[in-house]
Amino acid sequence: MTKQKIICDCDPGHDDAIAILLAANSPQLELLGVTIVAGNQTLDNTSRNACHVLQWLGKEDVPVYPGCGRPLVRDRVTAGDIHGETGLDGPVFPPLRKLPEREHAVHFLIRTLLDSQGDVTVVTSGPMTNLAMAMRMEPLIVEKIQRIVLMGGSYTNGNVTPAAEFNILADPEAAHICFTSGRPVTMIGLDVTRKVLCYPEIVERMAKVQNRASRLFVDLMGHFCKTQKEVFGWEGAPLHDPVTIASLLDPALTVTKPMNVRVDLSHGDSYGRTNCDVFHYLGLPATADVAVDIDVSRFWDIIEEGLRRYSETEAGA
Amino acid sequence: MTKQKIICDCDPGHDDAIAILLAANSPQLELLGVTIVAGNQTLDNTSRNACHVLQWLGKEDVPVYPGCGRPLVRDRVTAGDIHGETGLDGPVFPPLRKLPEREHAVHFLIRTLLDSQGDVTVVTSGPMTNLAMAMRMEPLIVEKIQRIVLMGGSYTNGNVTPAAEFNILADPEAAHICFTSGRPVTMIGLDVTRKVLCYPEIVERMAKVQNRASRLFVDLMGHFCKTQKEVFGWEGAPLHDPVTIASLLDPALTVTKPMNVRVDLSHGDSYGRTNCDVFHYLGLPATADVAVDIDVSRFWDIIEEGLRRYSETEAGA
Amino acid sequence: MTKQKIICDCDPGHDDAIAILLAANSPQLELLGVTIVAGNQTLDNTSRNACHVLQWLGKEDVPVYPGCGRPLVRDRVTAGDIHGETGLDGPVFPPLRKLPEREHAVHFLIRTLLDSQGDVTVVTSGPMTNLAMAMRMEPLIVEKIQRIVLMGGSYTNGNVTPAAEFNILADPEAAHICFTSGRPVTMIGLDVTRKVLCYPEIVERMAKVQNRASRLFVDLMGHFCKTQKEVFGWEGAPLHDPVTIASLLDPALTVTKPMNVRVDLSHGDSYGRTNCDVFHYLGLPATADVAVDIDVSRFWDIIEEGLRRYSETEAGA
Amino acid sequence: MTKQKIICDCDPGHDDAIAILLAANSPQLELLGVTIVAGNQTLDNTSRNACHVLQWLGKEDVPVYPGCGRPLVRDRVTAGDIHGETGLDGPVFPPLRKLPEREHAVHFLIRTLLDSQGDVTVVTSGPMTNLAMAMRMEPLIVEKIQRIVLMGGSYTNGNVTPAAEFNILADPEAAHICFTSGRPVTMIGLDVTRKVLCYPEIVERMAKVQNRASRLFVDLMGHFCKTQKEVFGWEGAPLHDPVTIASLLDPALTVTKPMNVRVDLSHGDSYGRTNCDVFHYLGLPATADVAVDIDVSRFWDIIEEGLRRYSETEAGA
Repeated sequence: MTKQKIICDCDPGHDDAIAILLAANSPQLELLGVTIVAGNQTLDNTSRNACHVLQWLGKEDVPVYPGCGRPLVRDRVTAGDIHGETGLDGPVFPPLRKLPEREHAVHFLIRTLLDSQGDVTVVTSGPMTNLAMAMRMEPLIVEKIQRIVLMGGSYTNGNVTPAAEFNILADPEAAHICFTSGRPVTMIGLDVTRKVLCYPEIVERMAKVQNRASRLFVDLMGHFCKTQKEVFGWEGAPLHDPVTIASLLDPALTVTKPMNVRVDLSHGDSYGRTNCDVFHYLGLPATADVAVDIDVSRFWDIIEEGLRRYSETEAGA
Repeated sequence: MTKQKIICDCDPGHDDAIAILLAANSPQLELLGVTIVAGNQTLDNTSRNACHVLQWLGKEDVPVYPGCGRPLVRDRVTAGDIHGETGLDGPVFPPLRKLPEREHAVHFLIRTLLDSQGDVTVVTSGPMTNLAMAMRMEPLIVEKIQRIVLMGGSYTNGNVTPAAEFNILADPEAAHICFTSGRPVTMIGLDVTRKVLCYPEIVERMAKVQNRASRLFVDLMGHFCKTQKEVFGWEGAPLHDPVTIASLLDPALTVTKPMNVRVDLSHGDSYGRTNCDVFHYLGLPATADVAVDIDVSRFWDIIEEGLRRYSETEAGA
Repeated sequence: MTKQKIICDCDPGHDDAIAILLAANSPQLELLGVTIVAGNQTLDNTSRNACHVLQWLGKEDVPVYPGCGRPLVRDRVTAGDIHGETGLDGPVFPPLRKLPEREHAVHFLIRTLLDSQGDVTVVTSGPMTNLAMAMRMEPLIVEKIQRIVLMGGSYTNGNVTPAAEFNILADPEAAHICFTSGRPVTMIGLDVTRKVLCYPEIVERMAKVQNRASRLFVDLMGHFCKTQKEVFGWEGAPLHDPVTIASLLDPALTVTKPMNVRVDLSHGDSYGRTNCDVFHYLGLPATADVAVDIDVSRFWDIIEEGLRRYSETEAGA
Repeated sequence: MTKQKIICDCDPGHDDAIAILLAANSPQLELLGVTIVAGNQTLDNTSRNACHVLQWLGKEDVPVYPGCGRPLVRDRVTAGDIHGETGLDGPVFPPLRKLPEREHAVHFLIRTLLDSQGDVTVVTSGPMTNLAMAMRMEPLIVEKIQRIVLMGGSYTNGNVTPAAEFNILADPEAAHICFTSGRPVTMIGLDVTRKVLCYPEIVERMAKVQNRASRLFVDLMGHFCKTQKEVFGWEGAPLHDPVTIASLLDPALTVTKPMNVRVDLSHGDSYGRTNCDVFHYLGLPATADVAVDIDVSRFWDIIEEGLRRYSETEAGA
C-alpha cells in the first residue's frame, strides 16, 4: 500500500499537537512537512511548539517550516485564553534541539506541490493563510493539490463569535481563497468536532497506554480541559484538529455531504462565518464535502491506536 | 384571572392560521386585533386569508388590519413555494363576508399601544415591518409594549439561505429595530420550531376532534406537509408560528436563555442572520430570551386543547 | 400661471430656514405644508424652529407637521456643532404663538398626496425619513409624487465623513427608498451647494433689503458663517438647502445630468455615500437628475428677490 | 548626489510604459528592478510589455520580475477596453530578446528590501498585490521600505465605478495592506492625474524630440488617446502613472496633504474607494500624503526632459 502524502499546516495549539502526533507515526501517511502559521499563538510560539512535539515523539526528521505571522487582510486574532501563554501550556518539554527550517512555509508548499504528481493532500488545522498565499503567489500549484482537508468553520454557530469559528475567523479571506480554489475540499467543522469531547475517562484510558506519546496526550489534555471549562463551561474538551488526520486514516469515520460553502467577507457581525448550504436553498454547485456526523467511539479508538504505535518506536529505539 | 392582551401581527400563511386559531378562542388571551403584513404572500392575500380563517372559526368580531405591503428597505421576498398561490392553499372557504378594517395596521398598533396600560404583548409571526414602522413613527409606544414574542430567526442555520430564516430575511431592518427596542423580546426560532414536526399521525389525531377548527387544521396541514416535503424533503412539517401563542398559554412549554441577538444587516451572504450569542462570547448585554428547547408532546396537547375549545363555541352557537 | 404645489420636508437648521423663507412667499409656489424631521437637531427643536421662522415672516398660515424623530434603521446623528444647541442659534425670536399641527408628517404626506392630482413636488432638505416612511406605509402615494427635489449627497466627497453628506448619512436607508421609488428625483448635492458660499459681502448686500426677512437672513448667517469657519475653516458658508427652492423658481439655475445613483448601505466606511455614475461606467438606467453646476450669481439674485418680496407683505400688513 | 533607489511595480499599460521610460534613464534615480503584476492586462502580457519597453529603450539591463497574476482576494478585473488586447496596443515592437527574470516579484521585493539600508522607495502604478504579498510573507521588510509612492485612488470619484479607481479596485485588500503598513505613503490619485491630459498638441511637442523614446511616446499616446475618447468621451488622455516618477524627480511638482485614508473593503457598491479624510472629519491620524494639486506645465517639461535624455544614450551608443 502506498502511503498518502500529506503536509500538515497548523498553529499548535493543544489539539494541533495531537493531530501532529497522529500524522507523524502512521503507517498510512507520509508526512512531508509541518508548515506553521500564527493563530492559537504567535508564529514564534507555534513554530517552537511544533518542534517540541516532534522532538518529544522522536520525530525530529519531520521538517518544520514557519510561515505567515499574521492573516492576509484582517488584524491579528489569537486564542491565548484557551492555549495559554506558550500556545501549548501544560507539558514540560526538555530543552529544544530541533530547529525549524529556514525555508518559508509558503515556499515549501509551492516547491513541494510543483514537484509532486498531484498526490499531496494539504491538511490545515489553523488559519489558512499559508496555503492561500501559496496559491496566490504561484497559481500553478492549485491543480497539483490533491485535496484540502481543513478543520474550521461551522454550519450552525461559531466558537469565537456567534457566527464564526476560530480558524476561519482568524483569516476569512484566506479561507475564501481555499474554498474557491476549485480543488476538492473537505471541511471538518465544529458541527462534528464538538461531538468529540475529551472527558476525564478518556484521559484515563489514554494514560494506560503508558508511553511518551500517551504522557504528552495526558499533559496536553490536562491544560486544555481546564481552559475549555473556564471559557465555555464545558466538562469535556472538543478535540477539533485531530479529526482531520483521523478522517484520512479511516474515511468512514465521518459522514460528509457536498455543499456550497461561502465564507462571509463582510467585515460585519457575521465576518468569517462559513455559510454552508445544507439544504441546497441557493442552487449553487457544491464546493466542499462538509462533515455532518462522526463515529465518536471509532475516533477514540484511532487516537488510542495512534498513541500505542509510539510504543513500537520506543521499543525499537 | 385577567386575560393577557395580545395583538397578532402575521402574514397567513398555514402556520400563522393555526396561530390565529389558537389565539382567537383562548380563555387566557384577549386578542385585540390581527395586523397583517406581506410575507408568505402579498398583503391582499394575507389580509384575505386572515379574514377567511376568522370567519370560518366564527370569530368575525376580531378585527383585521392590513399593514405594510413590502419590507422597509430591501426588495420583496415571498414564499409561494411553501404556501401556494393564495398563501393558504388547501382549505376551500365559503364566500367572504368579513372585511378587513380601513385603519392601517401601523395606526392600530400606535393607537392601541398609546391607549394601553403597558399590558399588551405583540406577537409577530411574519416579517416585523408593521411593528418596526409603528415604533419609528411614534417612539412613545415603545415603552408601552409589554413584550414582543416573535417567530423568527435561528442561532444555527436558516430556512431560506444558509444564514437566515424567512421572517427575518424578509425584513432584516425591521427585525433589527425590534431587537434593539429595549423592550423584552422572546425569540422563537427555527432551533425549536423545527422540532415541532406535524407528521401524518398528528393530523389523524387532530382530525378526531371533529369540529370546524379541526377540519381547518386538517385541510391546512394537507397542503403544508406536501410542500414541505417537496421543498425540503421532510416527512413532517415544522409548525413554526403557533409556538409563539402556545408559549404564552404555557410558559413552561419552551426553555429560553437570555442572549445578545444582532441581526446581520450587511446585504451580503449572511444578510438577515440572527447572530445569537449563545455562549456569551461577546460580553454584550442580553437583548432577547431565545428559545432553546421545547416540550413537543405538550405542544401537541395545547394544539388539541385549542381545537377542542371550538366545539364549545359551536355547541353554544 | 398655476402655482407649483410643494411640500417642504426639512430639519431647520439655518439653511433650511432660508429655504422656507424662499418657499413661503413666492408667487410661483403654493407651499402646502412644512413637514419636520429630526436631523440638524432633535424633532422638538426643528419643529419649534420652523414655527419661529414662519411666525417671524408673518406666514403663520403655513401648517407645520412634526414627523419622525429618528432615522429608519441607523442610530441618530445630529449636527449641533454647525447649527447650535437650538438648531437655529443666532436670531432672537419673540415668544412663539404658532403651534405645530397634531397630524403626523407621515399622515400629512400620505393624505395630501393621495388627494392630489399628481401635481405635488416634495422638496426635502433634511434626512428623508418622513417621505420614505410615507411611501412604505402607503405605496399608492408613490405614483402621485410629481417629483422629489432633495438637498443631499455628493458625487465627490462628503461633509460628515469622507464618503457621505449629512442628510443622506443621517438616514441612508430612507434615501435609498426615495432614490429607488421610480419617481423623478432631482439631487442637489454638495457638488453644487459648496459653490454657493455666503461671504460677508453677500450678508451686507442682503442686509440692505431692510425688512424682517432680510434681518432674519443676516442673523442666521451671522451664526452659520461663524461655525462653518470653526468646523471647516471656510470663510464663506455653503447655503445648501435653499438651492432646492431656488432651482424650482428658476429651472435654468442649475445644470443637471441624468445619472444612476445608489446609496451605500454597507454600514462600513462608505455608509451613506451617494454613488453617482457620472460617466456611465455601470450601464444602469439613470435614477436621478444630479446637479453638476450652478449659476452662483443668479442664485444670489433669487435670494435677494425672495427677501424683497417680504417688503410688499409688510407694506400690505 | 546619491541616486534615489526605486523599484517600479507596475502592469504596463500605456501610462506605466511612460513611467518606466522616465525612471529608467534618470540621473536622479537608480531603478533596481521592475516588478510586474496583472492589472491592465494579464501577467504574461504585462511582463512582455515591460520587456518590450526596456529593450526598445536600450535598457535591457533593468531586470523584470513577474509577480502575482491575480488579486489577493477578489476576482480578476482587467482593463482591455483602454489598453487593448496586448495591454500595450499601438507601438509595433521588434522581436523580443529581453527575458523576464525567473525570480518571483514577491521574492525580489523581499530580498532587495531585506538587504537594503532602508533607502528603497517602492513606486506602484498597478494593483498593489506584489507589495502587499511581500509584506505579509516577510513582515521584516516593512520597516525597510523608505516610502511607498502609488498611483491609485481618488478622494472625489472613480474611473471604473462611481466610487473606485482601477488600481485600487483591482485589489482593494492589497491597497488596504499598503495603506495600513505604517510606512510613509504618497498617494497620487485621479484627483491630480485627471489634470494631466495629453492633448494632440502635447503629442506633437513630444514628437519633435525625435528619438526612440519620443517615437514610443507618440505611438503609445496614439492608441491611448483614442480609447480614452471612446470610453470616456474625453479629448485628452490622463497620463496617470508617470506622475509618480515625475513627483520623485521634482518634489515640488505636486501639492500633497496628510490625510487619513481607508480603503473600502465592503464588497458592496463602494468597494475599493479610497476614503480620504480631506477635511479631518474623523479625527484619525493621517496615513498618507495625498496629492491635491499638480503643476501641469512642469509635468510636461519633466516628460520632455525625460524623452530628450534618451538622445544622449542613443548618441553614446
